[in-house]
Amino acid sequence: MNQKPDLTFRLATESDVETIVFMLADDPLGKKRERAELPLPRSYVDAFLAIDSDPNNELVVAQSEGKLVGFLQLTLIPYLTYQGGWRALVEGVRVAPGCRGQGIGKSLLQWAIIRAKEKGCHLIQLTTDKTREDAKIFYENLGFKATHEGMKLHF
Amino acid sequence: MNQKPDLTFRLATESDVETIVFMLADDPLGKKRERAELPLPRSYVDAFLAIDSDPNNELVVAQSEGKLVGFLQLTLIPYLTYQGGWRALVEGVRVAPGCRGQGIGKSLLQWAIIRAKEKGCHLIQLTTDKTREDAKIFYENLGFKATHEGMKLHF
Repeated sequence: MNQKPDLTFRLATESDVETIVFMLADDPLGKKRERAELPLPRSYVDAFLAIDSDPNNELVVAQSEGKLVGFLQLTLIPYLTYQGGWRALVEGVRVAPGCRGQGIGKSLLQWAIIRAKEKGCHLIQLTTDKTREDAKIFYENLGFKATHEGMKLHF
Repeated sequence: MNQKPDLTFRLATESDVETIVFMLADDPLGKKRERAELPLPRSYVDAFLAIDSDPNNELVVAQSEGKLVGFLQLTLIPYLTYQGGWRALVEGVRVAPGCRGQGIGKSLLQWAIIRAKEKGCHLIQLTTDKTREDAKIFYENLGFKATHEGMKLHF
């Protein structure tokens, strides 16, 4: 695996949203549910502004050689369970198609784990579609355990 | 199933936290991880205050005959995925031990589904521990599908 030498992480800005949406659509599941067209549907920008203004939501992008090569969203949530513990939730992990197999996804998740610890979380969690066959192993290699059923109800 | 006739729902207040924590501890998984003692460890109150002050977190209690009989936490999260769609996340669903089999859990979830729709979410999701054998069927009966692995990493 050729690790990108200059991989950096930062919070996404509004000017990243187009790139992110086109990456979301360039995916077997994403292409059915996104509208990657210009101008971008307003709902994407509104969602970005909601994320950006919420201290408990962080949309993080990985950058290499000046290009956006991956991203994920981290949500920090306070709960009464576990003695009033905070959890981190990861969603929407993506790596640019031309940049896979270079450890970017792993680095993004490692970034998220460190960030969750810094923010005082006792646990980081995510759900992964059972049809993404490699994803479960990818997360297991990072220390995640598939102890739960991830259940969804679409309206 | 004897449905409680006077079941009502409201946001939890600080004076409910003791009752909630003792209910969290009265559970096969919860008893290993909670500290249900008086005075309550400060971390519970701090977590409640964080939940209560966050417009995207709602701790909801079900009440019947003046008694707190169940609760859950709903978190509303904006995402870029699904055209900038909001999701609702359910956690910490509990029904008081003496009040099970009366439809309270079902009513709590139905409340959460309606609330998630009112708040503009396109999806409601949760994870349930694979050792809670009845829970998966309970959620399937409400329309949830176990399409995802729920993966956790404890620090």
